[in-house]
Amino acid sequence: MADHDCICTQDKVKEYLELMAKNAGISDLTDPALAAYISDSDGLRHLRDLFHYPKCGSLPDVDASLVDPSSDCIYLCGHSLGLMPKATERVMNEQLQKWARMGVYGHLSGDLPWAYCDEAAIEGVARLVGATKSEVSVCNGLTVNIHVLLTAFYKPTEQRHKILLESRAFPSDHYAIESQIRLKGRNPEESMIVMMPRDGEECLRTEDILQKIQEEGDQIAVVFLPGVQYYTGQLFNIHTITMEAHKKGCLVGWDLAHAYGNVPLQLHYWDVDFACWCSYKYGCTGAGGIAGLFIHDRFKEDKRDRMLGWWSHKMSSRFQMTNELDLDEGAAGYRISNPPIHLVAPLMGSLEVFNSVSMDDLRSRSCYLTGYMEFLIKHFFDEASPHRRSKISVKIITPAEFHERGCQLSLRFSVPIDLVYKELTKRGVAVDKRYPHVIRVAPIHLYNNYTDVRRFITALQVVVLSVKGDK
Amino acid sequence: MADHDCICTQDKVKEYLELMAKNAGISDLTDPALAAYISDSDGLRHLRDLFHYPKCGSLPDVDASLVDPSSDCIYLCGHSLGLMPKATERVMNEQLQKWARMGVYGHLSGDLPWAYCDEAAIEGVARLVGATKSEVSVCNGLTVNIHVLLTAFYKPTEQRHKILLESRAFPSDHYAIESQIRLKGRNPEESMIVMMPRDGEECLRTEDILQKIQEEGDQIAVVFLPGVQYYTGQLFNIHTITMEAHKKGCLVGWDLAHAYGNVPLQLHYWDVDFACWCSYKYGCTGAGGIAGLFIHDRFKEDKRDRMLGWWSHKMSSRFQMTNELDLDEGAAGYRISNPPIHLVAPLMGSLEVFNSVSMDDLRSRSCYLTGYMEFLIKHFFDEASPHRRSKISVKIITPAEFHERGCQLSLRFSVPIDLVYKELTKRGVAVDKRYPHVIRVAPIHLYNNYTDVRRFITALQVVVLSVKGDK
Ligand SMILES: Cc1ncc(COP(=O)(O)O)c(C=O)c1O
Ligand SMILES: Cc1ncc(COP(=O)(O)O)c(C=O)c1O
Repeated sequence: MADHDCICTQDKVKEYLELMAKNAGISDLTDPALAAYISDSDGLRHLRDLFHYPKCGSLPDVDASLVDPSSDCIYLCGHSLGLMPKATERVMNEQLQKWARMGVYGHLSGDLPWAYCDEAAIEGVARLVGATKSEVSVCNGLTVNIHVLLTAFYKPTEQRHKILLESRAFPSDHYAIESQIRLKGRNPEESMIVMMPRDGEECLRTEDILQKIQEEGDQIAVVFLPGVQYYTGQLFNIHTITMEAHKKGCLVGWDLAHAYGNVPLQLHYWDVDFACWCSYKYGCTGAGGIAGLFIHDRFKEDKRDRMLGWWSHKMSSRFQMTNELDLDEGAAGYRISNPPIHLVAPLMGSLEVFNSVSMDDLRSRSCYLTGYMEFLIKHFFDEASPHRRSKISVKIITPAEFHERGCQLSLRFSVPIDLVYKELTKRGVAVDKRYPHVIRVAPIHLYNNYTDVRRFITALQVVVLSVKGDK
Repeated sequence: MADHDCICTQDKVKEYLELMAKNAGISDLTDPALAAYISDSDGLRHLRDLFHYPKCGSLPDVDASLVDPSSDCIYLCGHSLGLMPKATERVMNEQLQKWARMGVYGHLSGDLPWAYCDEAAIEGVARLVGATKSEVSVCNGLTVNIHVLLTAFYKPTEQRHKILLESRAFPSDHYAIESQIRLKGRNPEESMIVMMPRDGEECLRTEDILQKIQEEGDQIAVVFLPGVQYYTGQLFNIHTITMEAHKKGCLVGWDLAHAYGNVPLQLHYWDVDFACWCSYKYGCTGAGGIAGLFIHDRFKEDKRDRMLGWWSHKMSSRFQMTNELDLDEGAAGYRISNPPIHLVAPLMGSLEVFNSVSMDDLRSRSCYLTGYMEFLIKHFFDEASPHRRSKISVKIITPAEFHERGCQLSLRFSVPIDLVYKELTKRGVAVDKRYPHVIRVAPIHLYNNYTDVRRFITALQVVVLSVKGDK
């Protein structure tokens, strides 16, 4: 991979900050004026205006004596729930108006005819995951789609019955896999390979995954891993793992919950067998937004057993209602129920934003924005830093290199995070807590800027001092 | 059943119309003035104002030279897609505003915290289906829920492996059952019992269903039937069929797509094992609205294998993220993904209407409203009627008795319906076509009135004359 030859991420980021600082005539890389300067000169800064960016005063637990309620909050929680695109409100209201005005005729009339509204999103979503249009469907929730996919692709035999996953898999994935193994009449204790990071490490090493596949691949039916790990923020090497697992005859599926809209994906080119994702994190479709699934085109004509419904049936003859299934091709044939317009509307709103910019430009912006956050965290909070002013230190458990992470950084605090989290919240900082020690933050390439990051650092400095006193 | 002792529906309806006509000083029961009179004196007439009732001018195919665009359309298609409650717009916009203003904090804050928004609907939905709160979940699409239920409850053995369904099952149900049989390693040809109506009949007779259960019950794992049949409008005798199938050791599941919000249901009391429904027909939640499922309380503690996700896990410990499943009780333990707020919002809007009135009052209104439609259809279009003015005649294939139908009437025309349907549409009449001969109409107890029905009859008179000339 080209990435491996480059100088390391930390140096690249520093080079960039130094260049910008020079242009701005600023000497201190931690100067908030530098953040303001980069934010202002950012070619993608207009994207923020496409979103409703919350004010401090409208967050529930903000203390108005500590922050100006009319100022922007510091929203670093887009890895959990993305902000609302302004377009979404418009699309949603158009669809409500259509329903109010024409009732059932909306199925076939007006913008976004409901009977095929999901199909309007396919092109945009396919672009985000690097797929052809026939490889993608939008439907259901994410875990439901894990079941849809494993029901069809996990067909254990005596010889090959295992599913390889990671020990820190998101609970819902873990339960889904465990229950699929049971439903197929097998025992999770025998059929689940749960990979743990090495002692003292947080992330799985690609080499260890490949070795496990080498060792047990003959018995592995399905490798199922996250594109980006929710807890550590680690970006897996989807291409290499998929390729190596294929050599051993395994099928390879990916949960892209934290990868979709976060990092560029090339599912088709990477030869991934199947994948699924939710859209409410980087996808910005709102809580419980519609999920997606990917089926590689090599399975396009494949009629494998799966959970069927009338939406698996080809549109052309679907409404003849004959009860003779005419299975749709590709990912479309994995749909089951008719699409919910009130979930497709926010997806269309979100795609208006994504369609206006390339994922590569977003990614490039993201790498430096997250790199800036990393630089500041290390500068002010690293255990070994001379600039640390509180007893509390922070270690970043997310991998340090661009090609091994998305925009999220997982910060492990040297103390339990309860108080830190609470005090951050009071100051209008939206982050996410993983007890006992981890806070996850994500400066989102769509709507965050360098000033948000810099303000977060200031807030964190104040907070760690306030909860533990001076060093 | 008490119903069986009453005088027949047709006589009851006539009695009622005669009484109202007498009160109004009207002699002709078909007089539009009678419809206006009953509509005006209707104790539930305010419900219509809780909905956006479309105008002729906003339907896509209306001919403005034939009807006044500013007049109410004749919406008789609520069995396909219910109209939009005004409350829905408000609830949806509240939730969009919350997202805009507080992002991720909306999961736990404000009205309808997203992390448990589905639970806010349980009480209202449970009331509509006659269930305890622990028996009901709202999640997914209807066919997805058929899979959720059959995955858990259809466990074929050598001895007992069949599923009994009807030959005219809605295609999606048919495909779901067929695929579940295959996924369980069996053959639909051996394991599907597809019941057909008697020669020359449209509806299945209860006695024939009971006899089939008597004959083949020992091999039947699951009886899966519709509460109200989508094509004929027949209301099945859920209680009796469930009881008799239980005697033979079968599990009994019901698809209530056309029963939910249409007829009063007593799933718990009727001892139904499991059931599911969509909410976008009589439930008025919009295209692809959130579906529901019912699991009888006798399975409350039962931990049978099923498709699991983090939403199957008890709320109290769900976010500890341990990967040790602590299965939630009852129907809640059949949920998989987190709930979509943008589908729960319309459900809450719809429940504002349903919670303001009793299902029994709605049902009583519905019986007479549909009875009035039947009376007029027979009067003006029955093959044998002296009042028929066109060559075209209409036969109602829906059962004639209250206790065997909901509000829908399925009209079989003596000619192919293409032209009739098209001409009705031009005149602002929204109905539903089932080629070649059937048009389904449903005066909905929530928002339709006697005048809608009477206007429909006038439109139909004009239309049948226009397409076929005089008798
Ligand atoms: C009886 C019945 N079953 C299944 C369905 C399919 O519903 P969904 O697309 O929500 O799965 C419908 C939809 O109209 C229906 O009426
Ligand atoms: C990696 C991963 N898997 C599964 C889920 C569960 O998603 P859903 O509730 O949409 O099924 C999430 C949600 O955050 C997730 O991050």
